[in-house]
Amino acid sequence: MRSNFKFFLLFSILSYANLQISMAGDPDILTDFVTPPIGSIDGNFFTFTGMRAPVNATFPITFKVTKASMAEFPALNGQSVSYAVLQFPNGTVNPPHTHPRASELLFVLMGSLQVGFVDTTNKLFTQTLQQGDVFVFPKGLVHFQYNCGTNTQALALSAFGSANAGTVSVPNSVFNTTIDDQILALSFKTDVATIQKIKSGLSG
Amino acid sequence: MRSNFKFFLLFSILSYANLQISMAGDPDILTDFVTPPIGSIDGNFFTFTGMRAPVNATFPITFKVTKASMAEFPALNGQSVSYAVLQFPNGTVNPPHTHPRASELLFVLMGSLQVGFVDTTNKLFTQTLQQGDVFVFPKGLVHFQYNCGTNTQALALSAFGSANAGTVSVPNSVFNTTIDDQILALSFKTDVATIQKIKSGLSG
Amino acid sequence: MRSNFKFFLLFSILSYANLQISMAGDPDILTDFVTPPIGSIDGNFFTFTGMRAPVNATFPITFKVTKASMAEFPALNGQSVSYAVLQFPNGTVNPPHTHPRASELLFVLMGSLQVGFVDTTNKLFTQTLQQGDVFVFPKGLVHFQYNCGTNTQALALSAFGSANAGTVSVPNSVFNTTIDDQILALSFKTDVATIQKIKSGLSG
Amino acid sequence: MRSNFKFFLLFSILSYANLQISMAGDPDILTDFVTPPIGSIDGNFFTFTGMRAPVNATFPITFKVTKASMAEFPALNGQSVSYAVLQFPNGTVNPPHTHPRASELLFVLMGSLQVGFVDTTNKLFTQTLQQGDVFVFPKGLVHFQYNCGTNTQALALSAFGSANAGTVSVPNSVFNTTIDDQILALSFKTDVATIQKIKSGLSG
Amino acid sequence: MRSNFKFFLLFSILSYANLQISMAGDPDILTDFVTPPIGSIDGNFFTFTGMRAPVNATFPITFKVTKASMAEFPALNGQSVSYAVLQFPNGTVNPPHTHPRASELLFVLMGSLQVGFVDTTNKLFTQTLQQGDVFVFPKGLVHFQYNCGTNTQALALSAFGSANAGTVSVPNSVFNTTIDDQILALSFKTDVATIQKIKSGLSG
Amino acid sequence: MRSNFKFFLLFSILSYANLQISMAGDPDILTDFVTPPIGSIDGNFFTFTGMRAPVNATFPITFKVTKASMAEFPALNGQSVSYAVLQFPNGTVNPPHTHPRASELLFVLMGSLQVGFVDTTNKLFTQTLQQGDVFVFPKGLVHFQYNCGTNTQALALSAFGSANAGTVSVPNSVFNTTIDDQILALSFKTDVATIQKIKSGLSG
Repeated sequence: MRSNFKFFLLFSILSYANLQISMAGDPDILTDFVTPPIGSIDGNFFTFTGMRAPVNATFPITFKVTKASMAEFPALNGQSVSYAVLQFPNGTVNPPHTHPRASELLFVLMGSLQVGFVDTTNKLFTQTLQQGDVFVFPKGLVHFQYNCGTNTQALALSAFGSANAGTVSVPNSVFNTTIDDQILALSFKTDVATIQKIKSGLSG
Repeated sequence: MRSNFKFFLLFSILSYANLQISMAGDPDILTDFVTPPIGSIDGNFFTFTGMRAPVNATFPITFKVTKASMAEFPALNGQSVSYAVLQFPNGTVNPPHTHPRASELLFVLMGSLQVGFVDTTNKLFTQTLQQGDVFVFPKGLVHFQYNCGTNTQALALSAFGSANAGTVSVPNSVFNTTIDDQILALSFKTDVATIQKIKSGLSG
Repeated sequence: MRSNFKFFLLFSILSYANLQISMAGDPDILTDFVTPPIGSIDGNFFTFTGMRAPVNATFPITFKVTKASMAEFPALNGQSVSYAVLQFPNGTVNPPHTHPRASELLFVLMGSLQVGFVDTTNKLFTQTLQQGDVFVFPKGLVHFQYNCGTNTQALALSAFGSANAGTVSVPNSVFNTTIDDQILALSFKTDVATIQKIKSGLSG
Repeated sequence: MRSNFKFFLLFSILSYANLQISMAGDPDILTDFVTPPIGSIDGNFFTFTGMRAPVNATFPITFKVTKASMAEFPALNGQSVSYAVLQFPNGTVNPPHTHPRASELLFVLMGSLQVGFVDTTNKLFTQTLQQGDVFVFPKGLVHFQYNCGTNTQALALSAFGSANAGTVSVPNSVFNTTIDDQILALSFKTDVATIQKIKSGLSG
Repeated sequence: MRSNFKFFLLFSILSYANLQISMAGDPDILTDFVTPPIGSIDGNFFTFTGMRAPVNATFPITFKVTKASMAEFPALNGQSVSYAVLQFPNGTVNPPHTHPRASELLFVLMGSLQVGFVDTTNKLFTQTLQQGDVFVFPKGLVHFQYNCGTNTQALALSAFGSANAGTVSVPNSVFNTTIDDQILALSFKTDVATIQKIKSGLSG
Repeated sequence: MRSNFKFFLLFSILSYANLQISMAGDPDILTDFVTPPIGSIDGNFFTFTGMRAPVNATFPITFKVTKASMAEFPALNGQSVSYAVLQFPNGTVNPPHTHPRASELLFVLMGSLQVGFVDTTNKLFTQTLQQGDVFVFPKGLVHFQYNCGTNTQALALSAFGSANAGTVSVPNSVFNTTIDDQILALSFKTDVATIQKIKSGLSG
C-alpha cells in the first residue's frame, strides 16, 4: 500500500521533471532587434497595420490568408514569431499543407472550424473547434482547416514560432508543378489519366 | 512479486520518456510532439478551450491575463509558441514587464491601446494601436500596454515565440519582494521613505 | 572622390550588418554522447550493422528504405546525423514526401536517378543523377526520387542533419487516412469519386 | 575604369563576407571565428587589453562596469561568451537590471558582496558572497549586487554566455525615459507625484 | 551617373542578401535555401559531381579525403549536412583528428576498417568494421580510421551534421606548426630531441 | 525493506539519467533554472564556494585546474556558462587540448602567460599576456598556455560559453590510451620506438 503511494510520488516527480526538461526553441539574435541597413526607426517600425482590412472589412468570397511574417513586417526579423489571419467563407477549406519552419497555433475568433493533422506515423488527429478555441499543429506535419458551416463565416488567427514559417501546399506542390505524370501515377498508385484530371482542375 | 513487475513497468515507461526527452540536443524536439508519459492521446490533447471564457464571457473589472502556455496547455511542449489573452477595462494598464524567453506579438482584437518598450540603449518606442493592429515587443525588453480610453474596453491577443515565455513584472520583482530598502533607495537615487511608500502600495 | 566616400559609407553599413548577423548559441548535448540509463557501453554501442543486408544481399522487388536513425541506432541520440539506404528496382519511385526535421543529402552509389523538389514558391527543381553524384533536398520541402531505368537497379545512401528526420509521405498522409472525402475534393478541386479512386488504390 | 575595379573588389569582399555570415543557419558559426571583412589578423585580434585599467589602476568613486563584449572585443563574435569587470566602492550598488541574452556568472575577486535575483514566480534568492565565491544569475531575471561594506572596496568579474548579453537597467528603463507619468503611477499603484520624484532623482 | 546606378544595384543586392542572412537567429535558416547573391539557380545548384572521381576512378596511393562541404558545394549553406569520401590504400591511416562542429557518421562502402575515438574521460572506444557497417564518432572527440589490410583497399563515406564540420589534425596542429619545442616537451613529458624528431618527420 | 532499496536504486538511476538529459543543448531552457528533482532551494543553490581555495590558499607545485562546471555546480544546468581557475607555478604548461562544447575566455589575474591556438587551416595564433589581459580561444581548436617565468606564479580565470565545455587533452587522448603503436607511428610519420617513448613518459 505504502509502496503504491511511493510509486505514485516517484512518478509525479518524474513527470514533473519531464515537463522541465523536454524543451526546445530558438537560438537568438545578438541585438535587441534587427534594423534596416539605413535610416532611423521609431514605433512605426514595430507596428503592422495590414491586418486591419481582414479583421474589419467585408468578407472575401473564397478562403483567404493575410500574413504578417518577415516579408510583410520586417521588424519580425530575429524575433521568432509571426501571424496569419485566415478567412473562411461558408463551406471553404484551407487545403492540406505543411509549414517547414514552425508550429502553428490557431485561435478561432469567429464561427467554427473542423481541423486536423497527420503525424509521421500516419495517424490523423482531428477536432471541431468553436469560437475561442485554440489548436496546435505541430511543426512540419500535414494539416488542414475546414468551415463546414452552410451559412456561417469563420475567422481565425494563427501564430507561428518563426518569423518565416513558410508554406508547402500539397495540392500545388504535387499537382500544380511539372512533376512527370508517370512519377505521380506510380506514387499515388493510380493511372496517368487520374493524375491529369487532378492537375487540370488545379491549374484552371 | 507484483512489486517487481511494477518496477519493471515503471522503468519501461521512464526509459521511454528518456528516449523522447534526451533528443533535445537538436534545437528542436526530435519527435512530432511530446506526449504525456502515460495514456493515449487524440485531438483533445492538441485543443485548448480555456480561452472561451475571456473571449465570450463578461469583461473583468481589472486588467486580466489568461494564458495558454505549456503549463495550461501541455501539447505546446516543444512547439515554441504560446498565447495570452489580455483584457483591459477602461483606463487600465499592463504594468512594465519583460518576457525572458520570447518576443511578444500583440494583436488588438477590440478597442485601442497605447503601447511601448525600451531597448537596451534606453530608447523608448511607443505607438497608439487600433483594432486589427499588430505590434512586436522584442525579447527580454521592458514593455507596457495601456487602455487610455474612458469608456472603451480593449481586448488583445498576444503570441509568444516560446511555449513558456515567462513574465518578470517590474513593480512586483523590484518593490514587492524583500529586497532591502537601502539597496532600492540607492538604486533609484531616492530616499527610503519613497521606497517604502511604493512598497506599501503594491503589497496592499 | 565622392565615390570613395560612398564606398566607405557602404562598407560601414555592411560591417555593421555583419556585427548584427553572426550570432551563435549552445544547441548541443552537454555530454560527449547520451548513454542508455543502465549498463556499460563499448565500441559496439557506436556501431550499426543493419546496413549490411541492403548493401550486400539480394535486391528487393519494390522500392525499399532501410534506416539508421535514432530508433534503430540509439548512439545517434544527440549527434544530429543519421542515414538511410534507398533501393530502387527498375522503374520504381520514392513517392513525394517531406522530412520535417532535416535536410537530405543523397549519394548515388549505383545506377541513375531522376530527382526533384518543390520550394515554398512552388518552383520545381529537378536533376538526373548518375553514380557518384550528390544532391541536396532542403529541409521540409516536398521531394521524390525515380529510377526510370528499364533494366538497371539503383542504390543510394542518404544522410540527414538530424538523428530523427521523420518522414511525411504525401500519398499516405493525405489519401490513406480518414480525412473526409469532401475536404479532399474541395482541396484538390476535383470530385469525390476521384478522391475515392485514389484512396482505394493506396489502401489496397 | 578604376571605379569598376573597386566595385569588383568590394563585391568580392562582400561575397566572401556573405559566405562567412550566411552559414549561421547552423546554431553555431560555421567557421573557426569571424574575421573583419578586410585585413589580416594575428594574435592581437584575439587579445583584449581594456581590462588592465580596472584591474590595476586606482579605484573609481562610484560603481563602474568595464565590458569586454562583442562591441569592445570583436573577436568574441560567434564565440558565445563575454566578460565585465565590476568595481564597487564602499556602500555602492549595481541597481536592479536584467540581461536579455545571457546568464551571468559572478566571481568575487576582492571584498564582499550582497547579491540577489527574483525569479518569474516573484521569489527572491539572496546571498552574501566573499572573495573567491561564484554566484549565477539566471538569464533574463532581475538581479542586483551591493557592497555593504563601509570601508572595503569590492571587485568582481562576471562572465556571460553570450558575446552580447545586453543590459536592461530597471531604474533607467522605467523611470528615466518618457513613459507617461500616469501609466507609471497606475503600474506602481502610487501617485504621480511619487513617480515624478523618482524620475527627477534619476535624471539629475 | 552610371556609377550611382551601380551603387544602387549593388546596394539592392546586398540588402537582399542581408534579408536572407540576418534571419539566422532561428536555429535554422529562414528561407528554403541560401542562394548566391546574384544569378538564377536551377537543379544544377543543388547537385555536386565532385564525388564521381573518388567513387569511379583509379585508387590513390596514399590516404585521400574528398569533401562535399559548404566550400565545395555552396547549396549546403544552411542545410546542416555534408559528406566526405575517404579512400584507404592497404595499410594506410587517417591520423587522429577532431571535427569541431559536427559528429561523423562513417559508412564502409568497401573493405574493412579499424576505427576508434577517445571520450573526454580518456576512454578509448574501438571497433573493426566491415562492408556495410556504420560507426558514429561523437562531436569534437579525437578519432582515427585504419585500413590494416595488406592487400585490400577500403572505401568509406562519412556524413557530418554540419555544412562545415572543420578538421583539426592532431599531428599537424601540434607538431607541424611553430609551437615552441620546450612547450611541447613539457606537455608530452619528453625531451626536446624527441619533439624535434617528430616535427621533422611531419614537415618532410 | 528490499523494496525501499530498489526504490532508492531506481531513483538514483533516474536522477543520473536526469542529469545527463536535462543538460540538453538547449538554445534555452524553458524554465528560469533547472532544480534538483527533490528538495527546496535557496540562495545557496546558486552559490559555489569551491574557488575560495585556489584563489586564497597556498599555490600548488604543479599546474592545476579547479572547475566550476555543471558537475561541481549543478545550478549551471541550462545557463550556458561555467568557470575554471588555472594555477601555473613557474615554468609550467597547460598542455595542448580542445574544449568540444565551448569557446574559452581567459583572464590573467596574476603574472604573465604565453598562449596560443591553431585554427583548422593549421595556422598558429600566439600572444604574451600580462595581468588584466583577456584572450579568446575559439571553440574546438587546439590551444595551450605556458608560464615561462622563472620566478613568477601565474593565475588565470577562464570562462566558457557552456555549462560543460569538456576537455580533450591531446597528450592523454592520443598517447595515454591503448591506441595501437603502429597506428600512431603511421599517423605521426615516425617509428614505433618514438611512440613508445612518449607513451612511457606520459603513463609514468
